[in-house]
Amino acid sequence: MAIGVGLLGLGTVGAGVAAILTTPEGRHPLVGGLQLRKVAVRDPGRPRPVELPAELICADPEAVVDDPAVEIVVEVMGGLEPARSLILRAIAAGKPVVTANKAVIARHGEEIAAAAAARGVYVLIEAAVGGGIPIIEPLKQSLGGNRIQRVSGIINGTTNYILSRMADEGAAYEAVLADAQRLGYAEADPAADVEGHDAADKIAILAGLAYGGPVSRAAIPTEGINRLEARDVAYAAQLGFVVKLLAVAQRIGDADATGVQALDVRVHPTLLPVDHPLAGVNGVNNAILVEGDPVGRVMFYGPGAGAGPTASAVVADILNIAGIRQVGGPEAGLDPLLAASSWRRCALVEGALTSHRNYVRFRTHDQPGVIGQIGTAFGQAGVSIQSIVQLESDGGAAEIVVITHEVQESRFRQALAAIEAHPEVLTVAACLRTL
Amino acid sequence: MAIGVGLLGLGTVGAGVAAILTTPEGRHPLVGGLQLRKVAVRDPGRPRPVELPAELICADPEAVVDDPAVEIVVEVMGGLEPARSLILRAIAAGKPVVTANKAVIARHGEEIAAAAAARGVYVLIEAAVGGGIPIIEPLKQSLGGNRIQRVSGIINGTTNYILSRMADEGAAYEAVLADAQRLGYAEADPAADVEGHDAADKIAILAGLAYGGPVSRAAIPTEGINRLEARDVAYAAQLGFVVKLLAVAQRIGDADATGVQALDVRVHPTLLPVDHPLAGVNGVNNAILVEGDPVGRVMFYGPGAGAGPTASAVVADILNIAGIRQVGGPEAGLDPLLAASSWRRCALVEGALTSHRNYVRFRTHDQPGVIGQIGTAFGQAGVSIQSIVQLESDGGAAEIVVITHEVQESRFRQALAAIEAHPEVLTVAACLRTL
Repeated sequence: MAIGVGLLGLGTVGAGVAAILTTPEGRHPLVGGLQLRKVAVRDPGRPRPVELPAELICADPEAVVDDPAVEIVVEVMGGLEPARSLILRAIAAGKPVVTANKAVIARHGEEIAAAAAARGVYVLIEAAVGGGIPIIEPLKQSLGGNRIQRVSGIINGTTNYILSRMADEGAAYEAVLADAQRLGYAEADPAADVEGHDAADKIAILAGLAYGGPVSRAAIPTEGINRLEARDVAYAAQLGFVVKLLAVAQRIGDADATGVQALDVRVHPTLLPVDHPLAGVNGVNNAILVEGDPVGRVMFYGPGAGAGPTASAVVADILNIAGIRQVGGPEAGLDPLLAASSWRRCALVEGALTSHRNYVRFRTHDQPGVIGQIGTAFGQAGVSIQSIVQLESDGGAAEIVVITHEVQESRFRQALAAIEAHPEVLTVAACLRTL
Repeated sequence: MAIGVGLLGLGTVGAGVAAILTTPEGRHPLVGGLQLRKVAVRDPGRPRPVELPAELICADPEAVVDDPAVEIVVEVMGGLEPARSLILRAIAAGKPVVTANKAVIARHGEEIAAAAAARGVYVLIEAAVGGGIPIIEPLKQSLGGNRIQRVSGIINGTTNYILSRMADEGAAYEAVLADAQRLGYAEADPAADVEGHDAADKIAILAGLAYGGPVSRAAIPTEGINRLEARDVAYAAQLGFVVKLLAVAQRIGDADATGVQALDVRVHPTLLPVDHPLAGVNGVNNAILVEGDPVGRVMFYGPGAGAGPTASAVVADILNIAGIRQVGGPEAGLDPLLAASSWRRCALVEGALTSHRNYVRFRTHDQPGVIGQIGTAFGQAGVSIQSIVQLESDGGAAEIVVITHEVQESRFRQALAAIEAHPEVLTVAACLRTL
């Protein structure tokens, strides 16, 4: 007996999902048991990339959720509202939900998860992070035996495309962004991507799954690539690094006596050594590196966006729901792995208390002894340095780049302030985290 | 209520599993609900890397399988027998099985799957391929919406370690193998690894999952790295390629009228362009690239062996069984995705009918015009060439390397035979597939 699927949205991803469901040949046989029963669109008159019978299309998303023939609700409309309300409406009706909406899950995930747990339905989100890359399910189901140490990823394709081109061509951020917009790789309003908000949404989701408890999206320190200068990308390359917009969620010690796990979660441009597994991830591709005990380092790589990849992830979730229905029928219990119920509380540590390596570029007067003064000043502040190089000088000013060893952020900032006060130092021109 | 686990074998992997099960803190809470109830070892007196209560240890694996307190049987003893019989015995008793044994699954997978389906129990095999890399579950559960075009992987760590060192050091195969044996990266009898049999076991398993039907292990053409010469690794590098032992399973067209899907499955040293996602996978790491419609290319990367990674995969399977038991209890139906029941028949196409790019190294007389003659001979045989280079010459003999475009194997072999008959050509010194 076919399982009825209702689709909220028929944009790029929605059309991709409809394309898979209506051409089951050669796919897993469960796909043939799924039937598209109703599709909500904003403008039913608009032409679509996929042909569907006219009677399936309607303009009322609530009618899709409420339709008794719709047993699984697929939300691919995006945005916070009405997506959130529709997801909650489906849950209230006891219908499992599949969504590709990272913004709504990152911001309202706790509310949605609580409603889903109370009603005993699944809300699956494979498509919300990493496009077609299976990452949510491996985190939920394949790595549960591990203590996860760190999840780090390149999880925004637009910024990775821009950074890859900046590195390849030595081009300026603004020029590549304009070209990316022309080519459709960046949106007309690129803020969500280039300022890091999209990556922060996604790392909030990954951290919640990896560490078993919701992470406050609002508390994640987020820095984008929009102030990154071409010269820092070039200097990084000279020193054996590539610059990537990295989203990181790292465990700080074990859970405390009250069961709260401290985490360092953040998004920022980061220097990666060229032999780091994430360093070779270029263009619009995404990759997520999971480090755990005892698995070690595993990485998941692939297309981070696009109709086909994202639809593949949405259909994976639909299939999971269809598959598990054969275990115990609609009234059965939830698989705690698939449901990904939270089992721990997580708290973000204050940024000043976290430790990292750093890349700093100083602009200084071009005179003998400045390198020594900077080195000495770092040393006096207790900041250990890996390398210090003068990379360029022009008309009286010099560029000095320092790579530090791991140092607590507060101590590092104190050292920077002290160095900036030296008369030979014109300015701290750039400061980037380094792996 | 705790779920009882029985362990067959307490070697490297078994000890790793026991270590996870006995230290649940910080892992998924389901781990805390698993209890190690009985462990079979060959010699109960031998010291172990993990401490277990003496009353858990016994020398009789059948007693572990038969113990009513053992609800999940974990087979990590390796080898074909008694592993196969014990797995079948557990199935007959209605107990789900988790195994890391690629050899037994590659050779007896059909028999085991049939028994498991008839009895309605799971046999899960995440640890059989790719060590700690989640690949079995993504293939079964996350990529089901796709038509899989190709699965290709570096799935033997020993040979990848040897090839990485040959490439880095320009060293000869025999020298690196001896060193790898000394360091514990290769076994005293390295045949299963270096002749490609281990990789063939694993690609048989991956192909069966990716294409939904069992693949005959015995029919897989398998070539190892044991006859690979250092100079071909060096020439490949000069031409922009790296040499990897690749296992490939590729779909040839759609299923025929009787529902049989033709596949090209094989294992052999392969030239990969340096910018191919698998080209950067070095040392004992493994990676599997899955290409599907509509997902595109996704890659899974990580440690392909070792106690910790493999134990992580074994525990993932145990957790999956524990999780799904909460859905419908022990008498519930099977999730067809997790059970990975086959839904199609697959047949390997004859090697002569498959098409590939090739790298060929000729040893020829060092005289003008030989390159032209070889080029002309390939052209006359209808084999299109990408490049032809003379790379070295010494005392009358020259080395000429040809990279062909894609060509049917039978046509290529005819061309080679014709060229070998030329009096200027001394021998076809090497011939390798090329991506």
